[in-house]
Amino acid sequence: MSTKTHSGRGAGVLRGLIPPVVLALVVAAAGSSASHAESVRPVFTFTTEEAFDADTVPAYAADHDKVYAHIDEHIDEHVAHLQRWIRQPSISPQGVGIIEMANLLKSDLLEMGFAEAELVPTDGNPGVWGYYDAGAEKTLMVYMMYDVQPVNEEDWISPPFEARLIDHEHGRVLMGRGASNQKGPQRAFLNALDSIIKTTGSLPVNVMITAEGEEEIGSVHYPQIVAAYEERLKTASGVLFPMNSKRPGGQVIMDLGVKGIVYWELEATGGAWGGPRNNEIHGSYRVLVDSPPMRLARAITSMTAADGNTVVVPGFYDGIEPPSVAQQRLINGMAKVWDDAGVQESLGVDRWVYDVTGRDAIVQYLYMPTLNVDGIWGGYIDAGTKTVLPHKATAKMDSRLPPGLDPDETLEKIRRHLDDQGFGDLVIRKYDSYPAAHTQVEDPFVQAAISVYNKRGHPVAVRPWLAGSAPFYMFTEHLGIPLVFSSPGYGAGVHGPNEYMVIEPAAGSGLSGLDEVQKYYVDLVYALAGE
Amino acid sequence: MSTKTHSGRGAGVLRGLIPPVVLALVVAAAGSSASHAESVRPVFTFTTEEAFDADTVPAYAADHDKVYAHIDEHIDEHVAHLQRWIRQPSISPQGVGIIEMANLLKSDLLEMGFAEAELVPTDGNPGVWGYYDAGAEKTLMVYMMYDVQPVNEEDWISPPFEARLIDHEHGRVLMGRGASNQKGPQRAFLNALDSIIKTTGSLPVNVMITAEGEEEIGSVHYPQIVAAYEERLKTASGVLFPMNSKRPGGQVIMDLGVKGIVYWELEATGGAWGGPRNNEIHGSYRVLVDSPPMRLARAITSMTAADGNTVVVPGFYDGIEPPSVAQQRLINGMAKVWDDAGVQESLGVDRWVYDVTGRDAIVQYLYMPTLNVDGIWGGYIDAGTKTVLPHKATAKMDSRLPPGLDPDETLEKIRRHLDDQGFGDLVIRKYDSYPAAHTQVEDPFVQAAISVYNKRGHPVAVRPWLAGSAPFYMFTEHLGIPLVFSSPGYGAGVHGPNEYMVIEPAAGSGLSGLDEVQKYYVDLVYALAGE
Repeated sequence: MSTKTHSGRGAGVLRGLIPPVVLALVVAAAGSSASHAESVRPVFTFTTEEAFDADTVPAYAADHDKVYAHIDEHIDEHVAHLQRWIRQPSISPQGVGIIEMANLLKSDLLEMGFAEAELVPTDGNPGVWGYYDAGAEKTLMVYMMYDVQPVNEEDWISPPFEARLIDHEHGRVLMGRGASNQKGPQRAFLNALDSIIKTTGSLPVNVMITAEGEEEIGSVHYPQIVAAYEERLKTASGVLFPMNSKRPGGQVIMDLGVKGIVYWELEATGGAWGGPRNNEIHGSYRVLVDSPPMRLARAITSMTAADGNTVVVPGFYDGIEPPSVAQQRLINGMAKVWDDAGVQESLGVDRWVYDVTGRDAIVQYLYMPTLNVDGIWGGYIDAGTKTVLPHKATAKMDSRLPPGLDPDETLEKIRRHLDDQGFGDLVIRKYDSYPAAHTQVEDPFVQAAISVYNKRGHPVAVRPWLAGSAPFYMFTEHLGIPLVFSSPGYGAGVHGPNEYMVIEPAAGSGLSGLDEVQKYYVDLVYALAGE
Repeated sequence: MSTKTHSGRGAGVLRGLIPPVVLALVVAAAGSSASHAESVRPVFTFTTEEAFDADTVPAYAADHDKVYAHIDEHIDEHVAHLQRWIRQPSISPQGVGIIEMANLLKSDLLEMGFAEAELVPTDGNPGVWGYYDAGAEKTLMVYMMYDVQPVNEEDWISPPFEARLIDHEHGRVLMGRGASNQKGPQRAFLNALDSIIKTTGSLPVNVMITAEGEEEIGSVHYPQIVAAYEERLKTASGVLFPMNSKRPGGQVIMDLGVKGIVYWELEATGGAWGGPRNNEIHGSYRVLVDSPPMRLARAITSMTAADGNTVVVPGFYDGIEPPSVAQQRLINGMAKVWDDAGVQESLGVDRWVYDVTGRDAIVQYLYMPTLNVDGIWGGYIDAGTKTVLPHKATAKMDSRLPPGLDPDETLEKIRRHLDDQGFGDLVIRKYDSYPAAHTQVEDPFVQAAISVYNKRGHPVAVRPWLAGSAPFYMFTEHLGIPLVFSSPGYGAGVHGPNEYMVIEPAAGSGLSGLDEVQKYYVDLVYALAGE
């Protein structure tokens, strides 16, 4: 999961609701047959202006001084563990170092005293399973990914697999591929567990680890890993995804879920409707022969209104779960730290769709499904000129779905729309699809995470979910357990060059060092145990 | 010039005219602002049902038996000349063998007795100029191209630069890159000249040769070659492009011109209207950020009516020169050999646009300008899934233009249409543009070519022009001299694997061998001289 999120200086003016927009399906000039089914982009009415305030969650009270001291005494050793992980490349898109990294994780777990640690065969890269038997009442499940993104070494100021400590504006940082996504936070979490074990002889909770080596290539086989331990995993009180969750300035953003997604290819080829069936032909025949690329463009265009954003596929917006009162309170709270201009600047974008701002933008961000063209291609796409009439044109498309929308039903609606518009010949090839995942803020695990942030003095804003997607429905829907991804850590450069994680923050930066991240995890594990 | 044309068994039922279609510009759902300028696809009324019959042109009467005999006696040597040319690769898209081939042509001309033969510097590959001074009253200009297309050697049944003689269903053929396009026909023409010179001591006409080495990459610098000899070239009676002009079965198709073309790229990028300006961003932001690929699709879609073919750019069809009576007669003649189903089958196409057939299809083919997407690309186009919101999407587009339409004005109309539709931010980058070229069938040079075909017993159908494009306006418009491209030769595989030219035709094939092609050229040169 690679969605970057943003906070800012607090452009927290509460805005009015999104203006009502009720659109009839616009079909003129968009397709070859007329259909008058309606597509209605919903408008949600807020019933409360109250804002969730994380400070109202009672702070976690206990201290675990001996464990904290162990962390302070062994911090160099702990940094070395992170370095050891980063120095083992495990680039799933290129198949580099996968087995080596899986075995490294497995042997680390065994060394820490995990009763079970084994590779889990899948139809792709193996998973890693670990079980620490503390004889405890409660069990914590931990999701990990041991793979990383590729690198362009020439773009890095420090070699990506040397894991050097670098002086940086944010302090002393550990630079390398995986430093923040996710080897750094994950090994920091294991350092925390190790410190508890070394100090007390055991853990306050049992721990089940399921690690996959395909997160960066779509998590296609992760369900096989879960299936292998499913009954045991269902006994867990919750699942933790160790993740750096601070933003520059020190604000923690806590996301309680992710959107779902369906991803497909849409392809126009020549056939009975017209166009060349077998191969591209000389461009001069365009005068007599239909154009598949223009047909694809027309089919894509038929799916939105003239604004380019309102989807006119009938029923596309039907079934979105409106913001609950609890979610409205979270959104009202988020609006206080949401900064449209800051996010736009970081993305290089001049404006949002419909010119929404503030709370309206947050509602759009969280509750509206998307229709996106990830890529499009067909015909001659090299330098210079070549005059051909292509026989084929293809688009990669996706739709991100908030809770309430089913990915397969969404794709069926799109198929029906295309059929109704006379584009029945266009082929849809489905790739991934999975629904949204969401944990309620009232869940004891979420409350525990907030209470530990509060004890340790980290400001927290809580969001219902990310607009990004990950197959976390496996936890929340399939296993039925709450999900928390958290820590006060800070990192940047995820998926790009010069990825790092802060080890010792600069004074006044508001960021946390590795020691604080590990102490947060210590408290979180105890808080979950009720100790 | 690589447009393949087709004949067939004569589905020669005369059809009615294209039904009147007068379209108001359709803008609903196609753009962001409304404009009501009109685009009218014209309908042409035929005033004659008479068909041009090439047989009515009196056959050329003279014989040049000594020259024919020389050809027969030296045919192996003549084949060897073609082989020598093909064995010298001259692949302009890859910059292979260009200077070597230019020098080979130059030295061949000197050896034949050309008074002038020299390389012509341009800003690209050099041209070759040759002048044979026969002290004659009339001068023949000859256009040549000495470059060829690239090859995929593994697709060939005979090595493309070995120029082997192969037994084939059509007879004994010479296989190699350039065998038909255009080294074979061109060297055959020089063999014919050489036979006249060897037999008679001179030629009946002066000959000016302008050869370029960039035909396969757009003829960008050919005007520089013409400019270097412009005043002398204007004294020529006509320009010949030696070309294999038979179709399977033996029908000669004689085209009297070509369409013009304008080629451009259309690009949508993020900017003030929305969308990411600098780079692709995470796909989850599609919920707040506009999509350049969808904007490009919408802009392209805005340019045609719902049928996908009728261009709604205001004024797009204005100015097309309607078929003259002479052209109507040619078209009525063409209709007798035009075979919709045969051409469709060879192209792999199920139907023509508007379901036109017969004469209507010919009129559509010749008189309508096209709007084509040669290629389209943007975002992630490799295997699998990547969720990005691209900041850019681009289409390569072209419009082929019949006589009467100016390429630059056409592009201006498209620019205005895009501006009017709210797509002023889309960038147009123009590549090539040149107008159509056309020689009248009444021209003495055309009549001479037909008279020689008639003498030698080759059935001829004459078309006003090709729907393909080439910068032959340089001859017909700029130099003001008539253009003929002809010979009864036959070849196939142009631009693809296993290119060949027939050397000895199979009995009953209706095709002609190298000897007959060369004798045709001998007669044509004398006919042009009036001897």
